Amino acid sequence: MEQTYQQPLVMVDTALFTILDERLCLLLARRREPPFEGVLALPGGFVHIEEDLDTTMAARRVIRGKLGIDAPYLEQLFTFSGPARDPRGWSISVAYYALIPADLLTQSQAVEAVPVETLPTLPFDHRQIVDQAIERLRGKATYSSLPAFLLPAEFTMNDLHRIYQQTIGTRLDQASFRHKILEQDIIEPIPDRFRGGAHRPAQLYRLTSRALTPFERKI
Amino acid sequence: MEQTYQQPLVMVDTALFTILDERLCLLLARRREPPFEGVLALPGGFVHIEEDLDTTMAARRVIRGKLGIDAPYLEQLFTFSGPARDPRGWSISVAYYALIPADLLTQSQAVEAVPVETLPTLPFDHRQIVDQAIERLRGKATYSSLPAFLLPAEFTMNDLHRIYQQTIGTRLDQASFRHKILEQDIIEPIPDRFRGGAHRPAQLYRLTSRALTPFERKI
Repeated sequence: MEQTYQQPLVMVDTALFTILDERLCLLLARRREPPFEGVLALPGGFVHIEEDLDTTMAARRVIRGKLGIDAPYLEQLFTFSGPARDPRGWSISVAYYALIPADLLTQSQAVEAVPVETLPTLPFDHRQIVDQAIERLRGKATYSSLPAFLLPAEFTMNDLHRIYQQTIGTRLDQASFRHKILEQDIIEPIPDRFRGGAHRPAQLYRLTSRALTPFERKI
Repeated sequence: MEQTYQQPLVMVDTALFTILDERLCLLLARRREPPFEGVLALPGGFVHIEEDLDTTMAARRVIRGKLGIDAPYLEQLFTFSGPARDPRGWSISVAYYALIPADLLTQSQAVEAVPVETLPTLPFDHRQIVDQAIERLRGKATYSSLPAFLLPAEFTMNDLHRIYQQTIGTRLDQASFRHKILEQDIIEPIPDRFRGGAHRPAQLYRLTSRALTPFERKI
């Protein structure tokens, strides 16, 4: 028979992104227990083997616990581990990142939105997790429908242009952005849906099933 | 104080790729303990918190134990988890993939090379790990120096062209391959190093420091 080894602590941590006041923000939660009690940190927690079917379900449970909602987009980022990352002992954190549209945020949620440029000092190795999450998000944003998951289900071309710029953190030429997006078959106009008055109403768009599918597969 | 939860079993599994007889192969190991004793599987094992500094070091230890060598290229792939993937209980496997040049393979190593097209039925969720590893390897191969890690440190342009074709599994036009590789600054000619006799000797190349660096960062 195989030798039994002492097992590491196993947790999940979640980097939750949203766009607030036109800036890419992280949703941080104040820790309610030691270590680092009272400190802002990534929402996370231990895997509960009696109820979680895998670490993705554990991440969903953590997000639901803090926000009361499901994240429209959730992806496994990387697994961090070692004897020193958590003072409680040798631990593994399966890190996830998720995109939360600002219209799903309410006062009752147990998180604070902080712009990624002005984050406080984070406990554990959460800064490393955040840096890797931002790199992944921005790397993928330029060639995918990812930033659209930060918008409500219906949006204008201007909304979309703005959210890509805010996610990536750089200006994008409006005409060539519009051209690239339309040729990628990521969004489609919603028949007879417009925003604004009678004077130049803006067409409303939604993600195509093609744009939704590859991400759902990854969750 | 925080409630103590029963912790999952924590292991690493490694998908080890090589090119043998011009085909992309996996190195599989026959399991020496139950469950699935005697069955070919991905080399893997429990994390040993007394000696492993993180899961990457655990993967390196597993590879060294089976092959007696370090993998020139090793990357974390994905973390698999759940109550059913291992009969011993709720478990987490941090999966890695690695590239092993065929010239590092010897008879004394405790593995068998099997072409990826003719793999046997694999235990646990190893088939899922393998499929994801092949997808990642082939996806990255087309725009990176990755396949070159399957070659010895010195190689000809023909060697390189062949190994890219075998890794990706499709034919690549030789002239445009040569052009693309040279413009990417991935390889460089080794001064005064050639293979073959006096009649049309072939220039030997090596990876540039630029090609080595981004991968070392990821390990």
